[in-house]
Amino acid sequence: MNQIIVLRWGHRPQRDARLTTHVALAARALGATGMILSDIRDAKIKESVDKVIEQWGGGFFFEMGTSWKQIVREWKAKGGLIVHLTAYGENVETSDVMKKIKDSKRDVLIIVGSQKVPGEFFSEKVSDFNVAIGNQPHSECSSLAVFLDRFFEGRELKGSSENAKVRIIPQRRGKKITAEK
Amino acid sequence: MNQIIVLRWGHRPQRDARLTTHVALAARALGATGMILSDIRDAKIKESVDKVIEQWGGGFFFEMGTSWKQIVREWKAKGGLIVHLTAYGENVETSDVMKKIKDSKRDVLIIVGSQKVPGEFFSEKVSDFNVAIGNQPHSECSSLAVFLDRFFEGRELKGSSENAKVRIIPQRRGKKITAEK
Repeated sequence: MNQIIVLRWGHRPQRDARLTTHVALAARALGATGMILSDIRDAKIKESVDKVIEQWGGGFFFEMGTSWKQIVREWKAKGGLIVHLTAYGENVETSDVMKKIKDSKRDVLIIVGSQKVPGEFFSEKVSDFNVAIGNQPHSECSSLAVFLDRFFEGRELKGSSENAKVRIIPQRRGKKITAEK
Repeated sequence: MNQIIVLRWGHRPQRDARLTTHVALAARALGATGMILSDIRDAKIKESVDKVIEQWGGGFFFEMGTSWKQIVREWKAKGGLIVHLTAYGENVETSDVMKKIKDSKRDVLIIVGSQKVPGEFFSEKVSDFNVAIGNQPHSECSSLAVFLDRFFEGRELKGSSENAKVRIIPQRRGKKITAEK
């Protein structure tokens, strides 16, 4: 099973704080292995995400500070695939781009921007595929979610994580949580 | 084809501004007919969303200010179904809840909260179904995106909207936009 890691580019500490946190939690809940906040450090976000990991378990990692160029260089050197999520890219529904990504059987680095990205992201120097979750403007958080759900075909949603201190027992009505001692 | 309208509850003007905008744009791009920001008005968000609608077309509407109780009452009176998205609900992957919603052939009001929601949302007084996009914490933006993609089965991602002034022509590399005069 290939792994997915998310590279979050262009984070602006105040303005993007909550969105970047939501992107990280979506990445975790929808099956990614980890997220790297590139080119910047933001201790508050790391704290929020690590708190969720501690409570809810699983092997998700959150790293920050490394330059995107270094991440891309090292990822390519390891033989990984790079997907840039952008409204300008190949349409995930009407093209065969998702099939190509799955068929590659390679680990995937997904780049999501939070502001206008460098033109290089579209070029072969960086991305293997530019993928659009529809060619309309929406959100990196919603785009990433749909990409991951289609990539993992729902397997990512099935259970609770290993080492979880709290787990939800799904209910038709109300809330049920089990907490381990 | 049944319609989906999103009810965004609990919006806090400063704190949630960008997230609520992203939720609205995700709702629009992924096939919802409109979004109602309940119990509060936020002119800045309406302006952002209306600007996207004006440029990118389609029939999406953005309304605000009506109380959630009134929206729910009127929706039920019209025979509509109400789905509350919550991590505590029935798992969209492991239960048959999505099938039940589709099979109902009824229009759907989706409630997404941005903070802890009133307990009533879980009860029959409000919701017909409580649905979890996995039973892990993530984001209303990512949850809504996956729900809509699964509900519309990708049909929502196929084209551009009617009356669009700008349209993206999907590309493997780079950006291509057509702008109408």
